Amino acid sequence: MKLATLDDGTRDGRLLVVSRDGSRASAVPAIAATLQDALDAWPSTEPALRAVSEELNAGRCATAEELDATRLHSPLPRAYEWIDGSAYINHIVLVRKARGAEPPETLESVPLVYQGGSGTFLRPFEPIAHYSEEFGVDFEAEIAVITDDVPMGTRAGDAAKHVRLVMLANDVSLRQLIPAELKLGFGFFVSKPSTAFSPFAVTPDELGESWRDGRLHLPLVTTLNGERFGDPDAGEAMHFSFHDLIAHVTQTRRLTAGTIIGSGTVSNEDRSRGSSCLAERRMLELIDGGEVRTPFLRFGDRVEIEMLDRSGRSIFGRIAQTLIRAERR
Amino acid sequence: MKLATLDDGTRDGRLLVVSRDGSRASAVPAIAATLQDALDAWPSTEPALRAVSEELNAGRCATAEELDATRLHSPLPRAYEWIDGSAYINHIVLVRKARGAEPPETLESVPLVYQGGSGTFLRPFEPIAHYSEEFGVDFEAEIAVITDDVPMGTRAGDAAKHVRLVMLANDVSLRQLIPAELKLGFGFFVSKPSTAFSPFAVTPDELGESWRDGRLHLPLVTTLNGERFGDPDAGEAMHFSFHDLIAHVTQTRRLTAGTIIGSGTVSNEDRSRGSSCLAERRMLELIDGGEVRTPFLRFGDRVEIEMLDRSGRSIFGRIAQTLIRAERR
Repeated sequence: MKLATLDDGTRDGRLLVVSRDGSRASAVPAIAATLQDALDAWPSTEPALRAVSEELNAGRCATAEELDATRLHSPLPRAYEWIDGSAYINHIVLVRKARGAEPPETLESVPLVYQGGSGTFLRPFEPIAHYSEEFGVDFEAEIAVITDDVPMGTRAGDAAKHVRLVMLANDVSLRQLIPAELKLGFGFFVSKPSTAFSPFAVTPDELGESWRDGRLHLPLVTTLNGERFGDPDAGEAMHFSFHDLIAHVTQTRRLTAGTIIGSGTVSNEDRSRGSSCLAERRMLELIDGGEVRTPFLRFGDRVEIEMLDRSGRSIFGRIAQTLIRAERR
Repeated sequence: MKLATLDDGTRDGRLLVVSRDGSRASAVPAIAATLQDALDAWPSTEPALRAVSEELNAGRCATAEELDATRLHSPLPRAYEWIDGSAYINHIVLVRKARGAEPPETLESVPLVYQGGSGTFLRPFEPIAHYSEEFGVDFEAEIAVITDDVPMGTRAGDAAKHVRLVMLANDVSLRQLIPAELKLGFGFFVSKPSTAFSPFAVTPDELGESWRDGRLHLPLVTTLNGERFGDPDAGEAMHFSFHDLIAHVTQTRRLTAGTIIGSGTVSNEDRSRGSSCLAERRMLELIDGGEVRTPFLRFGDRVEIEMLDRSGRSIFGRIAQTLIRAERR
C-alpha cells in the first residue's frame, strides 16, 4: 500500500491512498483525514485503507483522481519525533575524517542517532532556502521508516512489527556550522535544518523481498543538477538495521505512533557506487588527490533522490529540491 | 488564562480552561478539543478561550466542574518539538565540572540547546519508571514556554509575541548514561528519557510583572521526599532569555505552533537557594567536602516542583513524581 499527503494548505495536509504506479490517488475522509490520524488508529484504519488501495490498483476506485506529485507534502508534514541514525559505517568514517574527528570507539557496537527537529518538514519538491552558501549546504539521501507505538525496552528481534511505513529522506545538513555546534557538546541543532521526505510512504509488504532484516535492499539514486551522483545499495552496508535502531532508541523511553526513524546517509565502500552526500565525495577527493574539488551546494543547484524497484518503477516518487537564497527578515 | 489537558485516555487528551485558583475547570469542545488544536488556530481560539476563562473566574461558567489535578496530563501529552536550553550559567559550570568537562568557550555568547524527544511526555503525577537506579536518575526543575509559529530568522527583539504559554518542566536525566553518550558526538538521546510538565500552562499576562524580558522572575520550588531541595529565582540568573533562545533556534529553520522551549535547570549562584537537580548538589558537596554524599534518585524517592505567586498561590499546579522500577519486558 502506498500513501501520500496532499498539501491542501492545512497544517497536516490530506491523506491520500495512491495507486502502485503513482498515477492515481483517492482521499479517504471517511477513514482518516491525515496520515497521523491513520497511524493513531492503525489497527482499524489499515484494513480500510488497504481496501481502497486494492480498488485503486484494480482501476475500480470511484473516487480516484489523477495525481500531481508536485502538490504533495512530505507524508507527515510535521511529526512527533524525527530520530535520525547513522547506520552506514563507511559514511561515518569518511565524514568524521572530513571534519578532523575520530570515529567513536563503539562504531560497530552502538548506533549513532540524533534527535532531529520534527515540527516543520519541507515538501518533496520544496526549495531548500538558506541565507548563505557559506553554511555549506549539503544533502543526505536516506531511507526512513515510520513506526507505530513502540514500548520501552523493545528488542531488535521484536521490532519488525513496529515498522508501519517506509520512505526516503533528504536530511539537509549545514556542514560549515557543524564543527562549532558539536564542540558545544549538545549535538546538532542549528546545523540540521528542516528535512524533506519522499512523496510516497509505503507499507513494507509493498517492497516485497527487497525489504528484509530491517533493511531495504535496493540502490538509492541521487542526482545533482541532472547528473548521477550516487546509487549505493541501501541494504547490506547498513550496519545497524532499522530493528537495531528501534531497539537502541527505546532503551529508556517509548515512542508514539508516527515517529520517524532515519537510516543516515546511505553509503557503500565500493566507490563506483558514488555517494549520497557532498561531504563524502569531498573527502574522497581529498584522500585521492590532496584537494577538495566539489563545492557544497550553490544557489540554483538541484538534488533529486529516488529509488526504483527491480522493474524500474519509482517506489517512493522523487524528492527534487533546489537550493535558493532565503531573504533576511 | 490557565489551560490544562484532562487525561481522558486519548492520545492528546481533552483541553480544559481552568479557574485562576486551579479549583474548577471546563472542557471547551466547541472551541478546541485539544491544546494542540487550540494552538493551531490561536488567533480564533484564544478570544473564545479567554471568554470561558473570565466566566470561570467570575463563577458564572455553567459547564465548570471541580478539578482533580491528578487526572491531568501534561498540557501537551506529545508535541511536535521539545527544545531544551541550558540558560543558567551556574548550572552549566557546575554540571560540566561534575563530569570532568570544561564549559564551552562561548558560554556567555551562544546558548546551549538540545533537541529533546517530544513524542511521549509523562503526566505531572506519573511515576518515573526506569530499569535501574544505576542509570543515575536525576530531576531537573525548569521553566518552559509554548510558542506559536515562529519564522526562520526571528530576532530576540521580535520573539516576545511568539510566546503563547508558560509552564514548568521536570526534564528527567540519566546522569550515568550521559558521559558515554556525549562522547559519541551526537548529543543526548538514551540519557534523556521522557519529560513531564506542570498541570497548568498559563498565558504570559497571567504572570503579571513576574513575566518580563522573556524571563519568569519568581522562585522555582523543588522538594525531595517532602523536604525543600531548592527555591532559586528563575529570573535574573537566566543568562539567555526565552527570547534569546527563540532567536537562536530559528536561525536556520522555522518552528510550528505548539513547540516547547525549556530554560534548562534553574540555578542561582547564591547557595542558600539550593539546587534544582541532584547533579548540582553533588558537585557542591564534592567542592566543599571532597566527597559526594547525595545519591541520585532511589526507587521510591519523590520529587515535587512548583511555583507560587507573590500571594502564595500555586501558578502551574504541582509536578509530583516518584521513581519506580520498570519491569523488563
